[in-house]
Amino acid sequence: MSVSKCTRLSGALVKQLLDSVDSILFDCDGVIWRGDQAIPGAPQVINLLKENGKRVFFVTNNSTKSRKMYADKMTALGFDVTEDEVFGTAYCCAMYLKTVCKLEGKVYLIGSNAMRQELEAVGIQQTGVGPDHICGKPIDWANVPLDPEVKAVVVGFDEHFSYMKLNRAMQYLTQQGCLFVGTNRDTRLPLEGGKAVPGTGCLLQAVETAAQREAQTVGKPNHFMFDCVASQFGVKADRCLMVGDRLDTDILLGSNCGLKTLLTLTGVSTVADAEAHQKSGCPERQGMVPDYYVESIADLLPALQG
Amino acid sequence: MSVSKCTRLSGALVKQLLDSVDSILFDCDGVIWRGDQAIPGAPQVINLLKENGKRVFFVTNNSTKSRKMYADKMTALGFDVTEDEVFGTAYCCAMYLKTVCKLEGKVYLIGSNAMRQELEAVGIQQTGVGPDHICGKPIDWANVPLDPEVKAVVVGFDEHFSYMKLNRAMQYLTQQGCLFVGTNRDTRLPLEGGKAVPGTGCLLQAVETAAQREAQTVGKPNHFMFDCVASQFGVKADRCLMVGDRLDTDILLGSNCGLKTLLTLTGVSTVADAEAHQKSGCPERQGMVPDYYVESIADLLPALQG
Repeated sequence: MSVSKCTRLSGALVKQLLDSVDSILFDCDGVIWRGDQAIPGAPQVINLLKENGKRVFFVTNNSTKSRKMYADKMTALGFDVTEDEVFGTAYCCAMYLKTVCKLEGKVYLIGSNAMRQELEAVGIQQTGVGPDHICGKPIDWANVPLDPEVKAVVVGFDEHFSYMKLNRAMQYLTQQGCLFVGTNRDTRLPLEGGKAVPGTGCLLQAVETAAQREAQTVGKPNHFMFDCVASQFGVKADRCLMVGDRLDTDILLGSNCGLKTLLTLTGVSTVADAEAHQKSGCPERQGMVPDYYVESIADLLPALQG
Repeated sequence: MSVSKCTRLSGALVKQLLDSVDSILFDCDGVIWRGDQAIPGAPQVINLLKENGKRVFFVTNNSTKSRKMYADKMTALGFDVTEDEVFGTAYCCAMYLKTVCKLEGKVYLIGSNAMRQELEAVGIQQTGVGPDHICGKPIDWANVPLDPEVKAVVVGFDEHFSYMKLNRAMQYLTQQGCLFVGTNRDTRLPLEGGKAVPGTGCLLQAVETAAQREAQTVGKPNHFMFDCVASQFGVKADRCLMVGDRLDTDILLGSNCGLKTLLTLTGVSTVADAEAHQKSGCPERQGMVPDYYVESIADLLPALQG
C-alpha cells in the first residue's frame, strides 16, 4: 500500500488514526512536557486516551530518572500514569542486561542514581555512582584498582563523568568478555531558549574511542525499548502508534519497529526537517519521515472529547 | 622516480640516507625513549648526528610537557639537546594560535600546566587548569558562568577532564567566532607491558560531538609541526628525514610534508602494519608506508662511528 507521508493530522483523520491502534507510545520531553511544565492539554489527552480504552506507554532516552521518579513527576503534572507504563533507558538498560545479556557479574557504571536503582531492582550489582576524580597526587592510570567481579561497562548520562571514569571503563573493556552497553546516543540535551548541554552520546563516544569497541545501545532508535513494551503488554506493532518530537530517535524507532508514526512540533524537529529527509531519496533517511504530524498533541483533544 | 618502499635500512644504505639529509626529526616516546628510560644507544646516535653537522629536532604529540620540561628530561637521559630543538604540541598549539590564528582574546583551556605555560610564554591568556567538577548542589548546566573574553577553546591531554569542562567548552563553542583547536587526535597513550590509557583524541571527540564542530589539530600527522620547524630553522623538506614509531602520525606527517621517512620498531607499529598499508592499494594508506625501517635507531650507530 502506498501512503503519502508526513500528512498533517486533523479533522476526521484523527479519529480514523486513533481507531486503527490499541496502544500509543509517547516520548516525554518536547511531547508531553517541556522541562518542568506540561504541554498545555497533554494531561487531558493522555487521560482521555486511557478512558477511551487505549493503552498508553512512555518511552524516553533520558537515563536520569527511574520509573518511579517518572511516575511521580507525571502524577504531579496531572497525568494519570502508573510506574509500569514508563520505559526510560535507566530501566530498559537494566532489563537488557538481565534478560538479553543474562549478565552474571557486576556493572561498572558511568551513570546516575536512577540507573543504580534500576539495576538494583533487577538484582544486578554495580560499582557505585558519583564523583571519581583525582585529588592531588599523581596517578598510575594504567594500574588503577579494578573490581574483578565486573563483567559489563554501562554508560548513561553522568554529570560526574571524568578522565578517571573514562580510564576505568577503558581498562575494564580491554578485559576479555566484558560487555559494553550504552543507554543512548543523543549528542545533546536540548533545553528551553535554544540552549543545550552535552548528551550521553558525547560520553559514550569518548569511551568507545578509548576502548576501540562499539557499545550496544538500548535507547531509541534501537528496537529494544519497543520490544520491552511489546513483550510485557502483548502490544502488536501494526496496532501501535509512536508519538515523538525527534525524527532521528522517536520516528526512526517507529519505522524500525513497523509502528505508525506521529511527529509533534512542540520539541526538536520541524516539518521542514522531515521533508528534507523525504526528498533525500536515501532509504535510511526515509525512516525518519513520520506518517503524520500535529502542532501539539493537544490537537488530538477534539476527537477524544467528541 | 619509483622507489621500493619499506626497505630495511642497513649497511651502506645508512650512510647514503644520512648523506642525503641535513635535518632529522625524531618522535620521542617509542623512538628515543620508552617511558623514563632512553632507548639503548639513542643518546649516542643523537649526539653523534649533531657532531656530524646534522640538525636534529624533536616533534611529539604529547601535550603534557613544555619545551623546557622536555629539554630537562632529555638532558637527564644523556641527550645533548636545547629547548629550541623541541617541538611538542603544547608549544606548537600556542604558536598556532599566535601566528596562524592571530588570536586576540583568552583561551578556554582543557589541558595541562605545560600548555598553560606555553600559552603564557607567547602572551596568550587562558582560564586556568586543574579540577573543575561539581561538588554537591545541582547545577544549571546551560547557564554556567562564561568568561566574555574567551575567543578560543583548546583541547589537549587533561587528567582533570570532566562533564563540567565538556559543558563549558560546548557553551563557548556555540558562541559566534569562537576558535576550536586540539593538540592531537591520538586515541590511546601506549604504556609499558601492552597497557594503555585514553588519549587526547577521546576528549577531543567528546567536545566535537557536543559542539557539533570539528577542531583544527596541530599535532602529527597535520603538517603544522613541520611548518614550525621549517620556518624557524630554514629546513628544506627534500633534505629532511622523519623518524618515528607510528605509521598513522609520524610516517604520515613525513609523507604529508614530502620528507624521507624511517620507521623504528621500538614502539607502536610493526613492519607487518606497514606492509598491510602498502598492499591495500588505498592512496591514503600508502602515505603510512615508510621509506625505510630499523629495529632501533641504535642501528644508525655504526655509520656514525665509522
